[in-house]
Amino acid sequence: MRNAKCAPPIAKSGSMISKTCSIRVRYADTDQMGVVYYSRYLEWFEVGRTEYLRALGWPYRRMEEEGVFLPVVEAHVQYHRSTHYDDLVQVRTRIGEMSGVRLKIECEVWREGELLASGYTVHAFLNGDGKPIRPSKVFVEALKQNEQ
Amino acid sequence: MRNAKCAPPIAKSGSMISKTCSIRVRYADTDQMGVVYYSRYLEWFEVGRTEYLRALGWPYRRMEEEGVFLPVVEAHVQYHRSTHYDDLVQVRTRIGEMSGVRLKIECEVWREGELLASGYTVHAFLNGDGKPIRPSKVFVEALKQNEQ
Amino acid sequence: MRNAKCAPPIAKSGSMISKTCSIRVRYADTDQMGVVYYSRYLEWFEVGRTEYLRALGWPYRRMEEEGVFLPVVEAHVQYHRSTHYDDLVQVRTRIGEMSGVRLKIECEVWREGELLASGYTVHAFLNGDGKPIRPSKVFVEALKQNEQ
Amino acid sequence: MRNAKCAPPIAKSGSMISKTCSIRVRYADTDQMGVVYYSRYLEWFEVGRTEYLRALGWPYRRMEEEGVFLPVVEAHVQYHRSTHYDDLVQVRTRIGEMSGVRLKIECEVWREGELLASGYTVHAFLNGDGKPIRPSKVFVEALKQNEQ
Repeated sequence: MRNAKCAPPIAKSGSMISKTCSIRVRYADTDQMGVVYYSRYLEWFEVGRTEYLRALGWPYRRMEEEGVFLPVVEAHVQYHRSTHYDDLVQVRTRIGEMSGVRLKIECEVWREGELLASGYTVHAFLNGDGKPIRPSKVFVEALKQNEQ
Repeated sequence: MRNAKCAPPIAKSGSMISKTCSIRVRYADTDQMGVVYYSRYLEWFEVGRTEYLRALGWPYRRMEEEGVFLPVVEAHVQYHRSTHYDDLVQVRTRIGEMSGVRLKIECEVWREGELLASGYTVHAFLNGDGKPIRPSKVFVEALKQNEQ
Repeated sequence: MRNAKCAPPIAKSGSMISKTCSIRVRYADTDQMGVVYYSRYLEWFEVGRTEYLRALGWPYRRMEEEGVFLPVVEAHVQYHRSTHYDDLVQVRTRIGEMSGVRLKIECEVWREGELLASGYTVHAFLNGDGKPIRPSKVFVEALKQNEQ
Repeated sequence: MRNAKCAPPIAKSGSMISKTCSIRVRYADTDQMGVVYYSRYLEWFEVGRTEYLRALGWPYRRMEEEGVFLPVVEAHVQYHRSTHYDDLVQVRTRIGEMSGVRLKIECEVWREGELLASGYTVHAFLNGDGKPIRPSKVFVEALKQNEQ
């Protein structure tokens, strides 16, 4: 997803901004029920948070290069409507809650005004040795800047 | 998974039985963090419930052939420990709750006494036209037989 | 991929045009070697040919709705260089050969002037019953219009 | 796949042995054509060669731990017949050719006497820094022992 495709943050939602990306459904995403297989939404959630962090000026790739890892410790999805091959869906992402060492990221998948799925992931902050760490001040400040 | 691999139901858990299957972690399951990518557990949950239904004498393939579909309407996973390439994990599956038109299936992923992940899926009963239906009496009875 | 992202056909290659699409590498695409897992390129080939057919004015989704299916009967990939998480790759697609009932589609994956992978897929034309058919004249004409 | 499931090498094929593993087709493997999506066969090829190397007494996991990596540099698949959800397929794997720094592995996917797909992968030998290396003598000897 290029910047052209992932528009700048557009919607305030409580204190933090959300960000929307477009994803074209692949044939590989479908199953024999003729709809998107349920685990594939978690890949889209990943795309959503990747683009969120990029828009924040804090690409996840760089975070890992600097020794900060955000593995998923919890994931939840509710499937409201079926998604089909070649649909162009929008993934809307926003920061949910942020405790000291945990980050909740909320995601919604839309298709032209229809909510298809919603859910969240919870992430830990780990260093390169897999030990829990606190997020750097710069990162927390970047998130806070988004709040205004 | 052949019957030889997926042993008959072994553990009582409350009123309903659970069933355990073995899955060998594939290289394809891993990501660059060196652990299993988080959406892959949902595929294992699928394997778990497929083998559960087969052990029940009610293979899901036959259900679809007879016009009954069980799409996932909700999924939840908690990731407790990392899973690695070539690990041999056990997926333990049991029926959680069954209301009129919803079925909850609980899953745990183990590796030699260590709980790696736990969660559940909730399923609707649909007919071939995608309309909600009640599960057949034979199916409900098959589940109830398991309760004793 | 929206039209904005997938520019109109840009390069003549022999007699037929090629088409280029951008794909952002997902974390889900990587494996523990820290590079994209080898089967994922086949999903990108799929994206490439989907966008090729759309640019041709002949979206594959519509083809299936009209009862024409193009299953893959052969696939080949050569992996020249590693692809990494968050890379923005270009998939260049063109029609290779077209016999009566077979269509060869060639694909290349590039990253800023570096060829990462190349290969092809061969497709059969089937109707809704899985029987081989000849492609419709309109489709063949659409391909031929591209040749000039 | 446990040893119980993946029987010891059973078939001589030219000079080298082949090895057969069983894989149950997952719902996740299917697409909306009602058959297995074409990239999934490459995951099965991976399972096949993993079990081949394990039977050889040379598990790939250990190879990586000892600093030897076998990335795929070429892959080829021919799809002969459709594979369906819940099918129990057999993956038959054998060593194709072995030049100094390249290893070809051949794979076939069967379902009860029907050949579903066939193909191969070609692998390079790399060390932990991604530099080409020659395979260790012990490994080459293990392969040669299989030849008798």
